[in-house]
Amino acid sequence: MRPSQRQPHQLRDIRITRGFTKHAEGSVLIEFGDTRVLCTASVEESVPGFLRGKGTGWLTAEYGMLPRATHTRGAREAAKGKQSGRTQEIQRLIGRSLRAVVDMNALGERQVIIDCDVLQADGGTRTAAITGACVAVHEALDGLVRRGLLTTNPMRELVAAVSVGMVDGVPVLDLDYPEDSACDTDMNVVMTASGHFVEVQGTAEGHAFTRAELNALLDLATTGIAELNALQRDALAQD
Amino acid sequence: MRPSQRQPHQLRDIRITRGFTKHAEGSVLIEFGDTRVLCTASVEESVPGFLRGKGTGWLTAEYGMLPRATHTRGAREAAKGKQSGRTQEIQRLIGRSLRAVVDMNALGERQVIIDCDVLQADGGTRTAAITGACVAVHEALDGLVRRGLLTTNPMRELVAAVSVGMVDGVPVLDLDYPEDSACDTDMNVVMTASGHFVEVQGTAEGHAFTRAELNALLDLATTGIAELNALQRDALAQD
Amino acid sequence: MRPSQRQPHQLRDIRITRGFTKHAEGSVLIEFGDTRVLCTASVEESVPGFLRGKGTGWLTAEYGMLPRATHTRGAREAAKGKQSGRTQEIQRLIGRSLRAVVDMNALGERQVIIDCDVLQADGGTRTAAITGACVAVHEALDGLVRRGLLTTNPMRELVAAVSVGMVDGVPVLDLDYPEDSACDTDMNVVMTASGHFVEVQGTAEGHAFTRAELNALLDLATTGIAELNALQRDALAQD
Amino acid sequence: MRPSQRQPHQLRDIRITRGFTKHAEGSVLIEFGDTRVLCTASVEESVPGFLRGKGTGWLTAEYGMLPRATHTRGAREAAKGKQSGRTQEIQRLIGRSLRAVVDMNALGERQVIIDCDVLQADGGTRTAAITGACVAVHEALDGLVRRGLLTTNPMRELVAAVSVGMVDGVPVLDLDYPEDSACDTDMNVVMTASGHFVEVQGTAEGHAFTRAELNALLDLATTGIAELNALQRDALAQD
Amino acid sequence: MRPSQRQPHQLRDIRITRGFTKHAEGSVLIEFGDTRVLCTASVEESVPGFLRGKGTGWLTAEYGMLPRATHTRGAREAAKGKQSGRTQEIQRLIGRSLRAVVDMNALGERQVIIDCDVLQADGGTRTAAITGACVAVHEALDGLVRRGLLTTNPMRELVAAVSVGMVDGVPVLDLDYPEDSACDTDMNVVMTASGHFVEVQGTAEGHAFTRAELNALLDLATTGIAELNALQRDALAQD
Amino acid sequence: MRPSQRQPHQLRDIRITRGFTKHAEGSVLIEFGDTRVLCTASVEESVPGFLRGKGTGWLTAEYGMLPRATHTRGAREAAKGKQSGRTQEIQRLIGRSLRAVVDMNALGERQVIIDCDVLQADGGTRTAAITGACVAVHEALDGLVRRGLLTTNPMRELVAAVSVGMVDGVPVLDLDYPEDSACDTDMNVVMTASGHFVEVQGTAEGHAFTRAELNALLDLATTGIAELNALQRDALAQD
Repeated sequence: MRPSQRQPHQLRDIRITRGFTKHAEGSVLIEFGDTRVLCTASVEESVPGFLRGKGTGWLTAEYGMLPRATHTRGAREAAKGKQSGRTQEIQRLIGRSLRAVVDMNALGERQVIIDCDVLQADGGTRTAAITGACVAVHEALDGLVRRGLLTTNPMRELVAAVSVGMVDGVPVLDLDYPEDSACDTDMNVVMTASGHFVEVQGTAEGHAFTRAELNALLDLATTGIAELNALQRDALAQD
Repeated sequence: MRPSQRQPHQLRDIRITRGFTKHAEGSVLIEFGDTRVLCTASVEESVPGFLRGKGTGWLTAEYGMLPRATHTRGAREAAKGKQSGRTQEIQRLIGRSLRAVVDMNALGERQVIIDCDVLQADGGTRTAAITGACVAVHEALDGLVRRGLLTTNPMRELVAAVSVGMVDGVPVLDLDYPEDSACDTDMNVVMTASGHFVEVQGTAEGHAFTRAELNALLDLATTGIAELNALQRDALAQD
Repeated sequence: MRPSQRQPHQLRDIRITRGFTKHAEGSVLIEFGDTRVLCTASVEESVPGFLRGKGTGWLTAEYGMLPRATHTRGAREAAKGKQSGRTQEIQRLIGRSLRAVVDMNALGERQVIIDCDVLQADGGTRTAAITGACVAVHEALDGLVRRGLLTTNPMRELVAAVSVGMVDGVPVLDLDYPEDSACDTDMNVVMTASGHFVEVQGTAEGHAFTRAELNALLDLATTGIAELNALQRDALAQD
Repeated sequence: MRPSQRQPHQLRDIRITRGFTKHAEGSVLIEFGDTRVLCTASVEESVPGFLRGKGTGWLTAEYGMLPRATHTRGAREAAKGKQSGRTQEIQRLIGRSLRAVVDMNALGERQVIIDCDVLQADGGTRTAAITGACVAVHEALDGLVRRGLLTTNPMRELVAAVSVGMVDGVPVLDLDYPEDSACDTDMNVVMTASGHFVEVQGTAEGHAFTRAELNALLDLATTGIAELNALQRDALAQD
Repeated sequence: MRPSQRQPHQLRDIRITRGFTKHAEGSVLIEFGDTRVLCTASVEESVPGFLRGKGTGWLTAEYGMLPRATHTRGAREAAKGKQSGRTQEIQRLIGRSLRAVVDMNALGERQVIIDCDVLQADGGTRTAAITGACVAVHEALDGLVRRGLLTTNPMRELVAAVSVGMVDGVPVLDLDYPEDSACDTDMNVVMTASGHFVEVQGTAEGHAFTRAELNALLDLATTGIAELNALQRDALAQD
Repeated sequence: MRPSQRQPHQLRDIRITRGFTKHAEGSVLIEFGDTRVLCTASVEESVPGFLRGKGTGWLTAEYGMLPRATHTRGAREAAKGKQSGRTQEIQRLIGRSLRAVVDMNALGERQVIIDCDVLQADGGTRTAAITGACVAVHEALDGLVRRGLLTTNPMRELVAAVSVGMVDGVPVLDLDYPEDSACDTDMNVVMTASGHFVEVQGTAEGHAFTRAELNALLDLATTGIAELNALQRDALAQD
């Protein structure tokens, strides 16, 4: 039995709240159990220098964690004067994941900036961030269609992410913090709604893992992603 | 008539939500209309080097604004690698305001760290931050009493803050963003529940102000603070 | 009796030396007793990006303290790689104070940069800096008139600053370092020659202060500012 | 046919030169074709603060690229004043990969610091770095045994890394720069000599990839790693 | 004839004002014509970590230039967040020059920190800084003797510095800014009172220089240093 | 006898390997005994802002040391976030030395960037860097001639550098690390092939040095430079 009393293949309670803040073109509060991430998508009518005049768009992401989102307070990155390696790794992952499903040519010469800020952390902040960011970006792109700036939404399909891991020899889905700290292998999987992989990042925290374990984890992730896609669709249907 | 249809002496709708996040010793979401600030108070059983061994406590504050808390996205300070002068000014103000009402000797050799993070901005983020931080710190100190680490709460009295300003020649209370941008004089007042001033910061944005205007603004602030104190007491009474 | 043997309403010996250095368009050494601040005003024929092409000018200020201006040596900010929050707070205050009395449209598309560097500190460095900077800026703007670049000096009126505080229950004017360290309430007041307030910044270092105390302090500041204005006028009259 | 005339399952010419520099406890120049990385392992008789007194060791890694290792000169990170997100991601990966095969308790309270500096880049610098670092660390740990500080080498088994990718629909092994730029999917695989995975990082650069493609890539990586392990063993056998 | 109407072998007017500021253990304003540098020597009763417990002292130096010490305003290093290469080069030179004449063992486990801040620049700021710092350090060390902490002054002999250069084919002493900008070869020479070299730094700005030119410049520097030593002695004799 | 068994006037074994890496326009590995420095010259078809449109070129240099180039590992400057004063001093010296022999007008509006990275250090890294950089820059400029972008190589003559020092009272040439640590006086001399000085930097590490010692050191440097020029010519002759 898992610490949270969940079945191995069971996601935590997922909640997706659209329009959580009012200024951003897309704004979503996503909750994976006690993990809560505010995802906003901002649209700017310009692109970074290296893309200027090329008629193509750009999408990038930034990630942060409020100092007391965690059990013990972490130093504020703005006060330390630099983002940690972990932060940079995560924000690069979020950016790549969303770029994989948005047609940059169809977007035109404008930029989408995603901000994922963790209000409360209980494991899986990066997978929640990607899953929520997808909804926020979709919402922002819908706005461009509504305002007549685009004819169709340039997001080709939904993308979501979930973690899987081997805990005491059992493959489990959507690890919370106690499981994350205890597991031997931790894998983050990013997949599209059509069942293709965008990112697979498996790490042996303790013992290295076998090909059979890898396969079991990927099976589990695939079912979890499908459930997350359904919840994303529900959230986007509510207007 | 004000843009928000409020009377000159009328506060915005104020909401104080305790326990907004679960890890911090004190955690409050405070809303001054559309301005929303998450205030947490963290207690650490150590003090900065310059106080070690002196038997006295410390309290400090940090402030941040999520990049898309505002109408147009602001650069993330962690990514820029430094906090702006405005951020530092505000976090120093929050710290001084709370230190004025907490008995550092009674606190003992431990530190309270306040984090005020603006989720959504519509003017008055620093006054909301101080007012919310007071509740979060009180909550955290109550916890120390409950756990037997202190016999009484070392906060001597409540403290709250509000902005006042001259808009088109009229003194008004609790400016929102449209008023803040338009006003000639902007004053932030921090007062204790017993009606004493902790900080008075008046700035002539346009024309310098007279002693009579200053007096009218202070009168207005005094009534506003009393209302805020009542709301803080209500919030603390709910357990 | 005050440590310096002054009466409560008595300023320290104030000296304003114009042309202290030769390169700057305006250069003033101001002394408030043992506090000595070198204030220069530099005129540049360009404005920051956000004002380019708008036909209006800009004025900004920077502040620094030599490492050994103080009793014990402070770390050099250039070597630490960042300016402290205190430094940024002060230089923002100096800039706002001077912008309040200079007509930016009349200045035209050029920029005045004030540098206030504390050579020796004995309390009140920010008020000395504002008072001295006013003379340096006036001198620099006079130069623009003399060179035919402007027809009249765009400084509308003089501005000066002084500190006041409650020391042992007595309101006193122009605190030196021993008083500054000991006082309960410290207030910096910036006023124009016509007797209007530009900034009022009162801080309760120890106990919060009453409205009556605030009023007594403002009365004291008003007389002190008038004396400082007279000394500024004298300095500007000497050519 | 591949640009380099290699078969899909063929590694580039791999060369491992031990003792490339003289000061480090372990020093290896590894070449994957034109990619050349200098890997040194430094042993320090102390551990970071968080491990002090726990009787366990530590291993960490840093990565850098000489400015002109690449086709066009890249800015020097030391001059820019920060390491890029890519650099941090890679050095964290190298550290995790090596920690997975070294017994930290057996190492004792000392630290191994790996430095991987790319002298010339032609794709696959991170996989070359891990493969070379393994030899350098082994060499350094052998030295501790030789000096009587350890009785057996605490590296449990060898670890190596290789990239695989889908290029024009064909799974290929050990991508060079032209392939890396052109491929749809890029995967870096880190495995132990016993055939277990330490890290699997697959990224869809263009189109997302299927489970079947993932499997084909993992098969290819598995054979490549076995070849690299053999070359590592040869290098370590030469003394 | 030189722009300043000086003879080739003639120093500018040199003035050394002791006790220019009141807090530092040694405080000297040195003027080489229009170049004015405030040199302070601070004594701290501790040494940097690498010397702790070794019974020996340390001396180090920092250098800065006020933004408007020069013809056109230079950016403030504290605001830019780093010291320029030129600044670091100069402060390292000042430190080495003074360490060469102070007996670190006799100093005991304490540290002298020199601060040289340029109030006004007209060429030769580093040579003025060294010459002035020597007097300030001597003054500070005399203070340690007076307070009974040392029995004799640990400065072995005086040290001074001067620039020499080839201007239009003529070797000249103590270059001011117009000469410095125009000269082909610039050399800074640091010598002790006993006529030995501490530093010789010659740089060909335009054409490389011959051995004969080098010799002529060193001759000129030697006479200039002797004059400076005399002025240092005069300044130290005044009490 | 010297620790390396060399005669006082004897250089270490010098090796100059051209084309050490393949991407840079000029790439040289230079070895002064065990000191090994990789020098690359990169040509960019643009100049820094302050030279744009002036029809003249620029040359600049950067220097770095791999963390484990030395006996004990040094902190990586990119990780520390800043270059040391020593690094900046050296890279400024390399830049000045090469600018002295390249005709910037003949170069045209393009920039040469030198990177000198120390792979292994055993004393004299800056002199090896200058000597190697000269060959790398020549190689790069030859390439511009070959590609028809220039008609003649704008390097006027070769430049080389060597260290000399007083070790136990004897003047010796080309100090290695053990001598460098032990010597009283250390001098770095940069000279052109025509025997003129570009830089002379003498530093008394222990006792100050006499004019006679200075002369003996310069004599020694002059013969060493001539030998280095011959080796540079040999290296450039090999194609």
